[in-house]
Amino acid sequence: MVVRALRWVGAVDGFLELIDQRRLPGALVKLRCTEIEQVYEAIKTLAVRGAPAIGVAAGYGVVLGMQSCADDKNSGQGLACLAKSCDYLASARPTAVNLFWALERVRKKGDEFVAGRTGADVRSLREAILAEANAICREDIDMCRRIGENGERFIKDGSGILTHCNAGALATAGQGTALSVLFEAQKRGRKFKVYADETRPLLQGARLTAWELQQAGIDVTVICDNMAGWLMKQGRISAVITGADRIAANGDTANKVGTYSLSILAREHDIPFYVAAPSSTFDLGIQGGAEIVIEERPADEVRSFGESKVAPDGVGVYNPAFDVTEAGDIAAIITDRGVIEKPDTAKIAEHLR
Amino acid sequence: MVVRALRWVGAVDGFLELIDQRRLPGALVKLRCTEIEQVYEAIKTLAVRGAPAIGVAAGYGVVLGMQSCADDKNSGQGLACLAKSCDYLASARPTAVNLFWALERVRKKGDEFVAGRTGADVRSLREAILAEANAICREDIDMCRRIGENGERFIKDGSGILTHCNAGALATAGQGTALSVLFEAQKRGRKFKVYADETRPLLQGARLTAWELQQAGIDVTVICDNMAGWLMKQGRISAVITGADRIAANGDTANKVGTYSLSILAREHDIPFYVAAPSSTFDLGIQGGAEIVIEERPADEVRSFGESKVAPDGVGVYNPAFDVTEAGDIAAIITDRGVIEKPDTAKIAEHLR
Repeated sequence: MVVRALRWVGAVDGFLELIDQRRLPGALVKLRCTEIEQVYEAIKTLAVRGAPAIGVAAGYGVVLGMQSCADDKNSGQGLACLAKSCDYLASARPTAVNLFWALERVRKKGDEFVAGRTGADVRSLREAILAEANAICREDIDMCRRIGENGERFIKDGSGILTHCNAGALATAGQGTALSVLFEAQKRGRKFKVYADETRPLLQGARLTAWELQQAGIDVTVICDNMAGWLMKQGRISAVITGADRIAANGDTANKVGTYSLSILAREHDIPFYVAAPSSTFDLGIQGGAEIVIEERPADEVRSFGESKVAPDGVGVYNPAFDVTEAGDIAAIITDRGVIEKPDTAKIAEHLR
Repeated sequence: MVVRALRWVGAVDGFLELIDQRRLPGALVKLRCTEIEQVYEAIKTLAVRGAPAIGVAAGYGVVLGMQSCADDKNSGQGLACLAKSCDYLASARPTAVNLFWALERVRKKGDEFVAGRTGADVRSLREAILAEANAICREDIDMCRRIGENGERFIKDGSGILTHCNAGALATAGQGTALSVLFEAQKRGRKFKVYADETRPLLQGARLTAWELQQAGIDVTVICDNMAGWLMKQGRISAVITGADRIAANGDTANKVGTYSLSILAREHDIPFYVAAPSSTFDLGIQGGAEIVIEERPADEVRSFGESKVAPDGVGVYNPAFDVTEAGDIAAIITDRGVIEKPDTAKIAEHLR
C-alpha cells in the first residue's frame, strides 16, 4: 500500500498527523501536531520534506495556529492571528517556494472571506481556512494521481527502472510524482524491478524511496550512486525516472545532485530518461539551465554520516544540492497535464497554455 | 609529507609497524605487530589494505611467524615453521592475489636458501626471509616512485584532478600508484587541486585519500560520487586518475565500482582518463573485460554505515566491488615501466615484453 506522508484528522478543531521522516527507515513514527509550533519544527527539521508535502503541512499548520484564537474574537483579530501564523511558518525554511505559495493562498482566502461578509465570526474564518488547506491537499493528491496516470505507459512489464532521491508519496500529500508513475503501473498489474540510488549525502533514496516502495510491495533494490552506470552497462536498466525541483522554459531540469550524471549515462546506454513533476515546477522566467542558481549545502553533510565521521577534519568539501539536466537528454517530461516528449521551449509553452 | 602505511623496525628480531586504517581519519593509530597473529588480524579486518601493502605486510608477517622458531632448531624445522606461517597468512583474505604472491615468494626463498647450503641454521634462514621481505618492500617503494615519475607530466599546473577510491600510499609500502603521480607533480612544484570521490560503500576516498593528500599538503576536496559529472560539466576537472585492480590484455581495466561511470562522464566532457598501476596488474590470461568476474560484496555494506542504518531491513541490495572500464576510454595507462597511450593489445604486449 502507498503510504501517506500527512493527513488532517477531524474538523476545524482537529490535528495534523504526519510521518516523522527523520526516523525512517528505522522506525515508523507518526507525529500528532496539535500546535503550530510542532508544524514549524517538523518543517524546519525535515520531519516533513518535499515541496508539495511542505506546502500542505503549512496550510494545516495555519489552521492549528488559528485554534489559539478564541471564537468570541472578532474577524479583525482573526485576520491578525492568520497573518501572524503565516509569517511564523514562512520562517521555517527560507527557500521553500511551495511553503510561501501555500501560506499566501490561505492568507488570501482569509482576507477574501472576511471582506465578503460583514460581521464574520472567527469560527467561520477558521472553517474557511481549513477548507482552503483541504483544497490544497486534495489538489496535491489529484496532481500526483494524474502524473502517474499520464506516465504509467512508460513502465513496461518486466523492465528495470532506476530512480534517484525521493520523488515519492513521502514528498507529497498524495502518491508522489516519479514514484506515482510506478504505483500506477503496479495498479495495472505490471511487474518491474526498481533500483533506488541511495542518493548521498542525505540518502533519501536508501532511506525513503526504498522504504515506501517496499511498503507498496514493489520489488526494490538499493544501489550506491556510483553503481548506476555499471547497471546500465549490464542491460539491467530499461528507463530512468526522477522528479524535478525546477524546470526552465526550454526544459532544462534542476533536480537532486547526481541527476545530471544519470542523464549522460542513460544517453550513453540508449536508455530513456523521464522527468515527472507537477506543471507548477516550470519556471518560465528562466530561459535555460545556465540561469538556475545552484544552492550549496553545509560541508558536514558530506564529512559525516550520523555519528560516523567519514572525512578528515578541515578537509574541503563541495556539496551542491542540485544539478541541471539538459532538455536534450530528457525523453519526456510527465506532468499532471500530460506528457511532453522531447521537450523544447515551444512544446512546453504549448503544454502550459 | 607522504605517509607510510607500514614499515619494519629493527633487524631479524624486530617488529612490523602499520597504520591502523580502520581508525582513519578519526585517529592516527600505529599498530605494533610483534606476532604473526596480529598481522593476520590486520589483513583480515582491513587495518592494512591495498594489494601491494597486503603483500608487503604478509612477507613481514612470516618473519614474525618464524621468530617463534628457536635458533637451536634445525633447518627442516625452520622450513616447517615457514610453511605453517605462509599457510596461516594465506587464509586471512581468500581472494588477495598479492598476498599469495608474496607468501609464495618468501616460501620459495626459504626453500632455496636451505637447499643451497648444508647445515643451514634457523637464524640464517630467518635472516634470508627478512631479506626477501625487505626486497618485496623495497621493490614496492621503487615501483610506486617510478609510476609517479612516469605519470607526473600529465598533472598540469593549475589543474583540477579527480580520483576515485584510494590508490595511495596507504595501499602500498611506498607512495601509492595513482596518488604517486600527484606526489611527483607536487615535488616538481606544480599547484593543482584534487577532488576525491568519497567512494561508497566503504568510503576509501573520503576516509583515506582525502586524509593522505591532506597530510601531504595537497589541496583536496571531498565530493559525493554522484557529484563528479556536475563538476566536469562546470569545467573544474582537467583529468581523472585512478588505480586498477586488474587489467586485461586489451587494456580493459577492472577497478573500484564507480570507475566505469567516471570513464563515460570523462569522455562526454573531453577529459583525459588515466589509469596508474604496477605492470604486475596486467593479466594477459584475460583477453578483455567481459572475461573479468566481478565480486559481489555483502549487502550490509550498503544498507548501513557505521552505527547508522541507511536502508530498510530486508530491502534488496546490489553491491558489486568492481566494474570494468573500456580500454578505448583510457587516455593512458601509467606503469612502473612507462606509459601506454591509447592502450590496445599490441601496445600492452610490447610494453610488457
